[in-house]
Amino acid sequence: MIEGEKLVNEALNSNSQLVDEVFILESSLSEWEAKLSKLNIEPHIINSKELSQLSKLTTPPPILALCRHFNNSFDSGAILNKVSLYLHELRDPGNMGTIIRTADWFGIETILCSQGCVDIYNPKLIQSSMGSIFRVKLFYDDVFNLKEFKGKTTMYAAALNGTDIFKENSIDNCIILLGSESHGLPEELLNLADKIITVPKRDYSKAESLNVAVAAGIICSQLVIT
Amino acid sequence: MIEGEKLVNEALNSNSQLVDEVFILESSLSEWEAKLSKLNIEPHIINSKELSQLSKLTTPPPILALCRHFNNSFDSGAILNKVSLYLHELRDPGNMGTIIRTADWFGIETILCSQGCVDIYNPKLIQSSMGSIFRVKLFYDDVFNLKEFKGKTTMYAAALNGTDIFKENSIDNCIILLGSESHGLPEELLNLADKIITVPKRDYSKAESLNVAVAAGIICSQLVIT
Repeated sequence: MIEGEKLVNEALNSNSQLVDEVFILESSLSEWEAKLSKLNIEPHIINSKELSQLSKLTTPPPILALCRHFNNSFDSGAILNKVSLYLHELRDPGNMGTIIRTADWFGIETILCSQGCVDIYNPKLIQSSMGSIFRVKLFYDDVFNLKEFKGKTTMYAAALNGTDIFKENSIDNCIILLGSESHGLPEELLNLADKIITVPKRDYSKAESLNVAVAAGIICSQLVIT
Repeated sequence: MIEGEKLVNEALNSNSQLVDEVFILESSLSEWEAKLSKLNIEPHIINSKELSQLSKLTTPPPILALCRHFNNSFDSGAILNKVSLYLHELRDPGNMGTIIRTADWFGIETILCSQGCVDIYNPKLIQSSMGSIFRVKLFYDDVFNLKEFKGKTTMYAAALNGTDIFKENSIDNCIILLGSESHGLPEELLNLADKIITVPKRDYSKAESLNVAVAAGIICSQLVIT
């Protein structure tokens, strides 16, 4: 279920076949009628009591939609030629959604996820992706094995003790590995990577780490050609 | 109130006089006894039922503390010689806390906030700052007037239509203006700024914007000397 004008609009724009059912307040129907009828979608008109029963938000927006599950097919060739992210056991749906949004901004099309990551259909993940969930493809490691990419593309692992990311040049194809909020990347993945990279902190700073979505943004801004 | 080992530890390390009362489970007392007694703090030993009544988290951590309000005195001279942030009407406590954490990473000591921003004592803001709230000073615009800094330091405003941030050099002293999640910066502040800057997106990207905390991180990583 996706909630709100922004997300419903993004879903309809990116692939209207994803949208199964639309629920809308009568008062908002006029704004949406033309668009929905053009896409042959007959909305369910509901009242505000029904809306608040359906919605998961404290302030329900006037439009909701039920979407089909994404059914992206995995293409390892596309990984080898482009910049992709790999997320290891990210537990915070807001961080995951924000990383999806950031990937979309930098033109990253694929995010690889370990099984321990937040589910792609988590409502907070979808909300914080701000519509980017309809453009960036997520795959969980039941359909890929990260080790298979070793030697075929450059793997960068983000950690606290790597080389300065600002000394790296932008690159056409690589996988950027990012670890969980509390534990970072496990030894095994640090060993798998070709290079360990770090966002350097001010010498006198006592902060222990950056938020993973912020680190992802800074690393992408440096490695991805815009 | 601050919750959890990380935050209580950061509070005790940064300024133990801030900490008024400590509440702890008996089972965790042994780990903390030496530290607390060194600081002359007598903890309240509580049971898990009392803990869950006090805690605002679904999984209460074994230690909580009540802190005094910060009482930082505003020093406009410090603003003129260093890099500071100004936040306009940021409504999301997670974003505010993450920006505080990022500022701390880059050695930024002061964040100026409009009155419309999240309150400094919001529990989610404190939690997501990961202890940086005890090192970075926040001031709301009842104690300063942003216009007074005009001409005395460089003001950068983040917006979608500015010059490429990656073409800017790092700088010793400036104020970086960041706008609200939904509306960005108002016209008045864009006009006040010396330069409007943008994190460029990939030419074909359909994303509308970056999360404000991610944008802040990328901008700081470029402007601040590390």
